[in-house]
Amino acid sequence: MTATDRPLDVVILAAGQGTRMKSSLPKVLHPVAGRPMVAWAVKTAQELGARQVVVVTGHGAAQVEAALAGSGVVFARQEQQLGTGHAFLCGLDAVPDHTSADVLVLYGDTPLLRVETLRDLLADHRRRGSAFTVLTGELPDATGYGRIIRDAAGNVERIVEQKDASPLERTVREFNSGVYLMDARASELAHRITNHNASGEYYLTDLLALYRAEGDEVHAFRLADPAEVMGANDRSGLAEAEGIIRQRITGMHMRSGVTIHMPETVYIEDTVILGRDVTLEPGVILRGQTTLADDVVVGAYSVITDSVLDAGAVVKAHSVLDGAHVGAGSDVGPFARLRPGTVLGTGVHIGNFVETKNAQLAPGVKAGHLAYLGDVTVGEETNVGAGTIVANYDGVNKHRTTVGAGVFIGSNSTLIAPRTVGDAAFIAAGSAVHDDVPEGAMAVARGKQRTIEGWSRRYWGGLREQVQLKLPWLAGWLGRQGG
Amino acid sequence: MTATDRPLDVVILAAGQGTRMKSSLPKVLHPVAGRPMVAWAVKTAQELGARQVVVVTGHGAAQVEAALAGSGVVFARQEQQLGTGHAFLCGLDAVPDHTSADVLVLYGDTPLLRVETLRDLLADHRRRGSAFTVLTGELPDATGYGRIIRDAAGNVERIVEQKDASPLERTVREFNSGVYLMDARASELAHRITNHNASGEYYLTDLLALYRAEGDEVHAFRLADPAEVMGANDRSGLAEAEGIIRQRITGMHMRSGVTIHMPETVYIEDTVILGRDVTLEPGVILRGQTTLADDVVVGAYSVITDSVLDAGAVVKAHSVLDGAHVGAGSDVGPFARLRPGTVLGTGVHIGNFVETKNAQLAPGVKAGHLAYLGDVTVGEETNVGAGTIVANYDGVNKHRTTVGAGVFIGSNSTLIAPRTVGDAAFIAAGSAVHDDVPEGAMAVARGKQRTIEGWSRRYWGGLREQVQLKLPWLAGWLGRQGG
Amino acid sequence: MTATDRPLDVVILAAGQGTRMKSSLPKVLHPVAGRPMVAWAVKTAQELGARQVVVVTGHGAAQVEAALAGSGVVFARQEQQLGTGHAFLCGLDAVPDHTSADVLVLYGDTPLLRVETLRDLLADHRRRGSAFTVLTGELPDATGYGRIIRDAAGNVERIVEQKDASPLERTVREFNSGVYLMDARASELAHRITNHNASGEYYLTDLLALYRAEGDEVHAFRLADPAEVMGANDRSGLAEAEGIIRQRITGMHMRSGVTIHMPETVYIEDTVILGRDVTLEPGVILRGQTTLADDVVVGAYSVITDSVLDAGAVVKAHSVLDGAHVGAGSDVGPFARLRPGTVLGTGVHIGNFVETKNAQLAPGVKAGHLAYLGDVTVGEETNVGAGTIVANYDGVNKHRTTVGAGVFIGSNSTLIAPRTVGDAAFIAAGSAVHDDVPEGAMAVARGKQRTIEGWSRRYWGGLREQVQLKLPWLAGWLGRQGG
Repeated sequence: MTATDRPLDVVILAAGQGTRMKSSLPKVLHPVAGRPMVAWAVKTAQELGARQVVVVTGHGAAQVEAALAGSGVVFARQEQQLGTGHAFLCGLDAVPDHTSADVLVLYGDTPLLRVETLRDLLADHRRRGSAFTVLTGELPDATGYGRIIRDAAGNVERIVEQKDASPLERTVREFNSGVYLMDARASELAHRITNHNASGEYYLTDLLALYRAEGDEVHAFRLADPAEVMGANDRSGLAEAEGIIRQRITGMHMRSGVTIHMPETVYIEDTVILGRDVTLEPGVILRGQTTLADDVVVGAYSVITDSVLDAGAVVKAHSVLDGAHVGAGSDVGPFARLRPGTVLGTGVHIGNFVETKNAQLAPGVKAGHLAYLGDVTVGEETNVGAGTIVANYDGVNKHRTTVGAGVFIGSNSTLIAPRTVGDAAFIAAGSAVHDDVPEGAMAVARGKQRTIEGWSRRYWGGLREQVQLKLPWLAGWLGRQGG
Repeated sequence: MTATDRPLDVVILAAGQGTRMKSSLPKVLHPVAGRPMVAWAVKTAQELGARQVVVVTGHGAAQVEAALAGSGVVFARQEQQLGTGHAFLCGLDAVPDHTSADVLVLYGDTPLLRVETLRDLLADHRRRGSAFTVLTGELPDATGYGRIIRDAAGNVERIVEQKDASPLERTVREFNSGVYLMDARASELAHRITNHNASGEYYLTDLLALYRAEGDEVHAFRLADPAEVMGANDRSGLAEAEGIIRQRITGMHMRSGVTIHMPETVYIEDTVILGRDVTLEPGVILRGQTTLADDVVVGAYSVITDSVLDAGAVVKAHSVLDGAHVGAGSDVGPFARLRPGTVLGTGVHIGNFVETKNAQLAPGVKAGHLAYLGDVTVGEETNVGAGTIVANYDGVNKHRTTVGAGVFIGSNSTLIAPRTVGDAAFIAAGSAVHDDVPEGAMAVARGKQRTIEGWSRRYWGGLREQVQLKLPWLAGWLGRQGG
Repeated sequence: MTATDRPLDVVILAAGQGTRMKSSLPKVLHPVAGRPMVAWAVKTAQELGARQVVVVTGHGAAQVEAALAGSGVVFARQEQQLGTGHAFLCGLDAVPDHTSADVLVLYGDTPLLRVETLRDLLADHRRRGSAFTVLTGELPDATGYGRIIRDAAGNVERIVEQKDASPLERTVREFNSGVYLMDARASELAHRITNHNASGEYYLTDLLALYRAEGDEVHAFRLADPAEVMGANDRSGLAEAEGIIRQRITGMHMRSGVTIHMPETVYIEDTVILGRDVTLEPGVILRGQTTLADDVVVGAYSVITDSVLDAGAVVKAHSVLDGAHVGAGSDVGPFARLRPGTVLGTGVHIGNFVETKNAQLAPGVKAGHLAYLGDVTVGEETNVGAGTIVANYDGVNKHRTTVGAGVFIGSNSTLIAPRTVGDAAFIAAGSAVHDDVPEGAMAVARGKQRTIEGWSRRYWGGLREQVQLKLPWLAGWLGRQGG
């Protein structure tokens, strides 16, 4: 078996408490850019082609395991917090066969580590036939970190912790990231780690000496950008990590031909797919399984989640879409809310203060103002008047309404579900439609107008004093009426 | 009386015009992070435990005094602008007893100076038994500032202004902040300041020489961060100061266990209280006396003022709350507007395009879509249909409506106030309710539906040409009808 | 003719493809801060007082020419891309008389170059009686740029491209911006440029040697800020350029007396005019021909385009205005939408979820909640109830409605256009007004209320099981009713 054929197992250490988070949520579950931190590590490991991914859980183990359910990882519980060496062993013990694979150690709180970096680490490790490779970084001042002490040949001799470092060693700028790649003897050697030290813990760094004691060279692979291995330890750290991921994502889209205005105010999750010549205005938020085809425009401050927008669709400012499909050339908003189950055909117009839910609108439907379209199917070219409400709820159940093509629904109408309105029907403004309407029929369901002359003079006369104070024009009119 | 027992009087100089603000508002009244600049100085002085706080006013004195009315400060008007020494004396003259207290000089345009810094200054001053302590800062290049010239012993010998400084003195990086702390002789010595100088003004800095002439040592206390004493002189300065205060506040909340996404876009005033595991999405604005309990989530671009949200409440994107109380586990928005007097019980649901004002909604009430609830009390579990309007206004007065528990209000209904709807009543969709509805009754107040077959053919036939041009489906239908 | 009298012709090179934009839009048409890049160059040239502005087009020529139609420029098509020297000649050939003018070369992708800088360049050129002046910049590391090689006298000897530069020449920090100002011999000399070089292109830089061969001195004029000549080559470059222009504009307004909260989140186009003591909250967007008079306040996240706001008008958060005129002291929003043709008098109140379009509202009109006012004229002091809809559309045409002064429109009313409502009329809540209403009359057009006692018990009894599960209070009530 050649080196490049060797499988890779990944152990992700995710048992820590993270008291600086000051949270009831386990540290590694804190989300960064839409994904819990530990899920970033899992994603990276899987993209790296890991044969097995083991997540070592401890604090909040049940929550962490629930959050990663279905992700294809194996869990190993570290019941007692006896140190990183112990956590690593817990992880390895969960892998049925660890004698044929390289083993990589990752962490549940370093969401910035890129798969490209790990690919480079792996390639370097295998090219050099290394037994043990430490991922290192370099900082102008590495105070606080374990330092990499190299021997004359440039190999890693040992890692010295800050508290144990001599003044000279403290000037070393190369630090230990804690990410190690090792050959298949990892488990065998890790079992030799002892807790014979001041704090009585099992340290994973001891593995380095154990490898060297076997006569192996230990190599270091230096990161280009040390920020990749910075852990997020508190909420500021989360925000910083999220900021960096956010910039990576917006930068990638801009390089691919997306116009982003004020990109520092735009948030796009890494699950989002954007076509060419998409335009995003300031403050746009795109989340989850969202796809925007070519030439889509999203207006300022709109928030789109799990939605698909076909080519040339326009979402105007201040719209909120979730689980919607918007057809090519449709326009939505401003102030529109499309909820799950919304499917708009081509050339549909949804205007301001309009909500749709579980609504299928055929091509050319217009609902321009102040409407609620819930649990409804609407045919081609139908015009939904301002203020139209589909009354889909009877107090306990939702019912469905079907409106045909070419229908004209007058303003301020109510369609009381379940209702069927035939093609080309006409509903008079202000109607509460409680019977079905056949094709081509007109339905009117409102009171007839009565007009009472002179009424205002009496009404306002009764409120004369208040009118006097508040409504000068009306007071004047009332005076002129002698009322 | 020991040093630490000695009272402290604070004189805040706030008489300047601030022409660079280009404003009709006096400089010190320009707001920074929700509070006029001079009010930051007053707050800091009061938090420091000042016995008396004197604000010296001049330009726009009446406006400044009105803005600070009720804050417990004393005002001293500087009628003529004769210099800072004169302003200081005006201030001291307003303090009935200034012979027993330390005196601190602050400024109405340096909102960044933190109370912690002044506590350190005070402690240093008293520990050293200092007669006069200057708060100083250090800049790589202090051009423009008065420089601190120290004697061989390290005490302050004098302060030299930029224009009077020798080339050597201009290389000094320690500058005078203008903040002075002095012992109870301040008033006596300040009366000796003269205006025998080129500009004919009374300079407060002259006090330093007067103290030294008495044989006292003058000390300097150096700020860690010189930005704290930077005055805001124009609108850019205001924005910068606001940015720094904003970062302090968001940083503090993040350290305390609040998740803030894109914190650089979030604005929180210092009067706001946030519980643990609160989550704030991008662009959230929190103002005034707002308290968010544990686990509250506020969606993107929501603006919350003077409101209380109980544990686990969720405010979705694009909501505006002002003077509202939201019960535990309630959810609000997106696009909701809660106005003053809104009190939501637990588990209330307020959906999109819903406005409440002076509205008490009992637990479990649902108002999901396009509604106006003004001056109304609603009982438990009542369902407020989409498009419901409480017509609380008769043209001059507002009236109150009471709706019982378990009521079903059909969509597009109007409740014409004052109205009482009994428990478990049912209001048919589209009703304009102008009579009270007893418990358990059904009210319907709408027209009966009439359906006229074949009407559409005639209607659209009359508009045939335009239909032909604009509505191809309908034109086709019309053709098929032979209409 | 003195130098300062000499006309100036400007040739703007705008023929490039810009493959790094990855766009179907020609590079120079990508917008920056509301204006295509090439239009920034045209604007700058025109503000500089150019006699003629020639835009040399190539890639996407038709699109570029269409975008600049009506701007007063002359177009010259470069049919084949034979190099910058050739492009320049194409441009000059389009100028009828180029023997009397200075000629300035600009570029269609450098929107940051300020007219003030060019004025300084021009002044320097003329003061020195220069034949040819290169605009240069200085960078700590100018790698990639052509370097300026000066002779002993400080004049420009030549420009050496990166690939041709010696190691010593590569240390030169002064670089060629590509902007050249030359005397009237430009055309004559440019015709002598050859393509006898490795790439077979005509290089504009060769002109420099041709001038020197004539015995003329070539001068350099150094930019204060090299960022001004940075071209935007990809979407990130566009965003950066837009960011810089944005900061210039917000900075200018702040210096002029506008308060901007979180200016880094505010976007203002350079066509916008702002009065003194205007206040802009975070996230405000102001576009196009927008003018805000003194003391106007615009709330967070509001987007205003091509609108005029008179003194003291207040736009609350989350409002969208386009083509509207708002009278002095009026207040609008939050969540208001004013569309083109909206004209609000003084003291008008537009509240939440209200849309106006082609609507003239006289002083004192109030429309506070959930309304659509389209194609309507409303008289003084009229109160538009919550939920009012003007039904202006009959399916193919829009009709106009006129409402008098002092009218009271009850909530949830519908005015079916075309309609006329007289002064001081009163429309009962819930009415669908299908007849005109005379002055002083009351119109009611709704059903009369019927109340059916005991109905709820039967209704909910039929749904008993579901009620049991979902609505505990109602289930309890039902139980108590024995229903």
